[in-house]
Amino acid sequence: MRVKLLISYDGTEYHGWQSQNNETSVQETVICAIKIITGEDVTLVGSGRTDAGVHAEGQVASFETSANIPAKNFARALNTVLPPDIKVLESQSVDSNFNARRDAKKKTYRYSVYLSSIDMPLKERYAHKVYGELDVEKMISASKLFIGEHDFKAFSSTGSQVKTTVRTIYDLSIEKRGIDLFITVSGSGFLYNMVRIIAGALIKIGKGSITEKDIKNMLESGNKIDNLTTLPANGLSLISVEY
Amino acid sequence: MRVKLLISYDGTEYHGWQSQNNETSVQETVICAIKIITGEDVTLVGSGRTDAGVHAEGQVASFETSANIPAKNFARALNTVLPPDIKVLESQSVDSNFNARRDAKKKTYRYSVYLSSIDMPLKERYAHKVYGELDVEKMISASKLFIGEHDFKAFSSTGSQVKTTVRTIYDLSIEKRGIDLFITVSGSGFLYNMVRIIAGALIKIGKGSITEKDIKNMLESGNKIDNLTTLPANGLSLISVEY
Repeated sequence: MRVKLLISYDGTEYHGWQSQNNETSVQETVICAIKIITGEDVTLVGSGRTDAGVHAEGQVASFETSANIPAKNFARALNTVLPPDIKVLESQSVDSNFNARRDAKKKTYRYSVYLSSIDMPLKERYAHKVYGELDVEKMISASKLFIGEHDFKAFSSTGSQVKTTVRTIYDLSIEKRGIDLFITVSGSGFLYNMVRIIAGALIKIGKGSITEKDIKNMLESGNKIDNLTTLPANGLSLISVEY
Repeated sequence: MRVKLLISYDGTEYHGWQSQNNETSVQETVICAIKIITGEDVTLVGSGRTDAGVHAEGQVASFETSANIPAKNFARALNTVLPPDIKVLESQSVDSNFNARRDAKKKTYRYSVYLSSIDMPLKERYAHKVYGELDVEKMISASKLFIGEHDFKAFSSTGSQVKTTVRTIYDLSIEKRGIDLFITVSGSGFLYNMVRIIAGALIKIGKGSITEKDIKNMLESGNKIDNLTTLPANGLSLISVEY
């Protein structure tokens, strides 16, 4: 039986979904929970990696099991052994061909910032502080440049091997609520650090330190401009994966 | 010079504003930060205690200093030595008679819950999980019973010595946003555990397990009913103190 899990985690204490070395990863922690419940060593396929410190409201992962447990009961069973910062929100049986990574059609990430001159203890865990004013109208206007199919080479970090740096962004919304600002982006897939670099570029647009022309140039040339910033991991959350 | 501080903290790791024993408290941590900056052992008067695990968006405290530092610079100076989960949002000079506890005219607390059958890692730090549906209209109707001057004896925990259990609630609002629900209450002052017990009673109203009549009886008689719950500390935050 193939089982699909919907997983939420607070990534603060983890070295990402999948760790490179022997450091604690979310994936490995869920694999251990499955081992405790079923006795099996499973291969757990996530929809994709999230970096160290990145959170997830709705990561999706799948595994094959011959345990005699109804698929929908896995959530409750795994949650009895998982730590408080990782929980399975839902489990279901899926077609035996289902692969959480290969079959993902659309992913949505949210980058959260808050506007303050001082680190705020009740915000800092899940959002990145931005000092000074932001011109949100300018940010919304510039955000439209990213929508569609583009070569996002200039908006990625080197280090991962990919066949192509072309990706499609379906939607990019910017919502300001009091001092909180949310940048939500949906796409076919994302390059390494792509959401954090796009969010950083949009913040710089809002501050007036780069222009829409800079973004257009980067999308066309594939070359980074000097003062791009990869925003820190704590503000990022994988919201959902669609199949 | 008397200095007034506006302090925010994530209470998760602290034994409250003021600890009874030798456990780490927010107050003691701020006192140490002041000692590092000024060299002085000050008496730091908070607007009131918050219990172990309770958060604050806007606690207020005051102290007397002869340090040669402009009052408004204390925030920045203290934040360089304070840990990430306690920060001073603002500092200012106040009249030498000012006392953060005695002079507080109005305090606002917020109790946050989320509706879910499963503990959610990204909610659990700052909100309490409630399983099942809530009739929010019923809760809003019942919340009006608390407004005004009442004897809140039945809505407090024993253990603190107070002259009177009569308090005035100025406002009590209930806001539902998706699966999040916020109970915000302003009053002249609050008895021990009063906000957590009132929030617990309103949740029970929403679940239909107690009635408005039960609340009226408790306010009139001062006697608790059996199935009252003091909700856990993590959902509570001191939002503001007015003078």
